[in-house]
Amino acid sequence: MTVRNIRFDASTHELIILDQTLLPHEERYVTIDTLEQAEHAIETLQVRGAPAIAYFGAFVLAKEAGRLVDDPDFTRRLEIVGRRLIATRPTAVNLQNVIDSLLALNSGEDFEQIAGEIERRAVALYDRDVDTYRAIGEHALSVLPAGGNILTICNAGAIATSRYGTALAPFYVGKERGVAFNVFACETRPLLQGARLTVWELDQADIDVTLITDNMAAWTIQAKGVDAIIVGADRITRTGHVANKIGTLQLAVLANHYGIPFYVAAPHSTFDLTAEDAIEIEERNPSEVTHIGGQPTAPVGITVFNPAFDVTPPELITGIITEAGVFKADETAIIHHVGGTIHV
Amino acid sequence: MTVRNIRFDASTHELIILDQTLLPHEERYVTIDTLEQAEHAIETLQVRGAPAIAYFGAFVLAKEAGRLVDDPDFTRRLEIVGRRLIATRPTAVNLQNVIDSLLALNSGEDFEQIAGEIERRAVALYDRDVDTYRAIGEHALSVLPAGGNILTICNAGAIATSRYGTALAPFYVGKERGVAFNVFACETRPLLQGARLTVWELDQADIDVTLITDNMAAWTIQAKGVDAIIVGADRITRTGHVANKIGTLQLAVLANHYGIPFYVAAPHSTFDLTAEDAIEIEERNPSEVTHIGGQPTAPVGITVFNPAFDVTPPELITGIITEAGVFKADETAIIHHVGGTIHV
Repeated sequence: MTVRNIRFDASTHELIILDQTLLPHEERYVTIDTLEQAEHAIETLQVRGAPAIAYFGAFVLAKEAGRLVDDPDFTRRLEIVGRRLIATRPTAVNLQNVIDSLLALNSGEDFEQIAGEIERRAVALYDRDVDTYRAIGEHALSVLPAGGNILTICNAGAIATSRYGTALAPFYVGKERGVAFNVFACETRPLLQGARLTVWELDQADIDVTLITDNMAAWTIQAKGVDAIIVGADRITRTGHVANKIGTLQLAVLANHYGIPFYVAAPHSTFDLTAEDAIEIEERNPSEVTHIGGQPTAPVGITVFNPAFDVTPPELITGIITEAGVFKADETAIIHHVGGTIHV
Repeated sequence: MTVRNIRFDASTHELIILDQTLLPHEERYVTIDTLEQAEHAIETLQVRGAPAIAYFGAFVLAKEAGRLVDDPDFTRRLEIVGRRLIATRPTAVNLQNVIDSLLALNSGEDFEQIAGEIERRAVALYDRDVDTYRAIGEHALSVLPAGGNILTICNAGAIATSRYGTALAPFYVGKERGVAFNVFACETRPLLQGARLTVWELDQADIDVTLITDNMAAWTIQAKGVDAIIVGADRITRTGHVANKIGTLQLAVLANHYGIPFYVAAPHSTFDLTAEDAIEIEERNPSEVTHIGGQPTAPVGITVFNPAFDVTPPELITGIITEAGVFKADETAIIHHVGGTIHV
C-alpha cells in the first residue's frame, strides 16, 4: 500500500501532511493552518520531494487566497505569500513553476473568483499528478531489466509525489503487473531520506529493498551486479543538467565507469527551460552533517561543507524519463518533449 | 599534538589503549588485562587501523607469552592465542603477518627465552613504526601539491598507527615543515571514523580540515577543486589490488573520472604478496547501517548489505606510497620495492 502524504479538503480548506521527519519511527500527521507553519514544513522537510512541495505550495496558496478574499490588499498580499513559498527551497523548480503559474491568475478585483480558480487549479494539479507518475513508471519499466538489481538514492517515491513517485514509480507499477525488482537504496546522508523513507515506503509496499550506506555504491554495483541506476530530480535545465540530491553526481560517474545505464525520472514540471548548467545549490546547516538524530557525531565547531544538491552533466545521463517517454539529456530532445508543457 | 593510542609498559606488561569508540566526545583509556578483552577491543574497534592492531596484537601476544611461561603446554596455548588474535580481523594482513612472524619464535622448551624475545620484538616493532610513518609522510609530501586540497576517507591517521599515520602522514610531516594542506574528510559511514577520528585528530594538530558526508565527494572535487585523493590500506596484494575501508573504491573511480591522482599510503607490513585480486571481505552487523550512535535510522528488520571493505583495482591507483618511496600499483614494482621485507 502506498502512503498518502498530503491531504487537502477543498470544502474546509483543511490541509494535513505526513510529517516525514519522524519516519520511519512514527507516522504522524500534522495540520497546516498558517503560512508560517507551511514555510516551516518545507524548510524542515516535514514535506519534501520536488513534486510534493509544488502541490503542497499550491494548496497553501489556495488556502491563503481563501483567507485573504476580504482583504482590500489581496493582490499584493497573495503575491507576497507566493514569493515567500518559492523562497523556502530555491533549488526546486517545480514549486516555483507552480506558484508562478497560479500567481498569473492574481489580477483583477474579483478576489473570490481568483481564490476559487487557484483552488480548482491546485486540486486539479494534484489529481493529474497520479496519472503523470504512473506514466513515468510505465516508461521506466520499458527500459529497466525486469527482475534486475536497481540502485537509487534519496526518496523520489510515493511520499515525495502524489502517488508512485518518479524514480520509484517503476517498482510500484511493476508490482501491480507482477514485475519484481531488487532495489538497493543509498541511505542518503545527511538527512537519511533513503534509510528513513525509501526503504520504509518500498517495504510497506512489499517490494524487495536492501539498504546500503552511500559509500557502498561502487562495491555494491560490482559485488551484487547492479543493472541500472535511477534517480529523481529537483531541477532539469534546458541543456540537460540535473540538480538532484547530493550524491547523485557520483552515482552517475559510477554508472559511467561500470557501463550501466543511469536514468533520471522526473515530470515535466521539474524542467527549467530558462536555465543551463549554472544552478544555485543550497548549502544547509552544518549541524546536519555533525549530528545525526540530534546526537553529535563529530567534534564541536568543526568546518563542514554541506551542499544539499549536486549537478549531474548530460553526458553522464543515459536517459531522462518523463510522463512523455524516455529521451536523451540534450537540448533538442528536451525542447521537443518538454517545451511548452511546463506550465500548470 | 598527535595522540598516543596504545601504551605498553615492557616491565609491568601493562597495556593501555585509547578507546576510539568513544571519540570525539570522550578521551578514555582502557587497560587490557585478558585475551578476551583484547579480542573485544579489536572486534568493537576500540583499537583500530591495520598497523595499530598489528602491534596491539603483538603486545597482547607478548603479554600472554609472559603469563604462560610456567605452563607446560606453553607452545600449544601460545599458538592458540595467536590464531585467535588473527581471527578477530580476517581482512587486515598486518596483524596476520606480525603474529605469524612472532609465532615463528614459538619453538623449543625455554619458554622464558621465547616470551622475552617476543616481547623485545613487539616493542621494537612499535618503535620502528614511528620512522616508517614519518618516511611515508615524506614520500607523500613529494607527490602532493603543497597547499593543495586533499580528500581522504576513514582514519589512516596517528591513532591508527604509532604516530603520523599513513594517509594523514603528509599533513603531520608537512605541518612540522610549514607546508599546509586543506584536508577534506569523508565521514565514512557506517562507523564514522572520518567524522569521529580524522577530523578530531587533525583538528587537535591544528591542521585545516573540512568534514563532508560520503556522498558529497564528487561534488566537493568539482566545487572545491580537490587536487588529489589519498587513502590508507588494510591489505595490498601482489597484483596491486587494495582492500581498504568501504568507500575507497568509489573515490578511486571519481579520481579517475576527474583526472586527479589517487594515492594509497601504507607500510610494507600491509602487503600480502601471496594474494591476488580475490580478497575476503568482512561483512559486519546490519545494525551498524540501521543505527547511528545506538539510535535506529531505518525501519526495524530491513535487509542490509554491510561490507566493511572494498577492493580497488591497480588501474585506478596513481601510486602506492610506502616507507620505501612512491611506485606504481603493479606486480613488478611491488615485488621490487616490497618483496622480501614484509616480515618483522
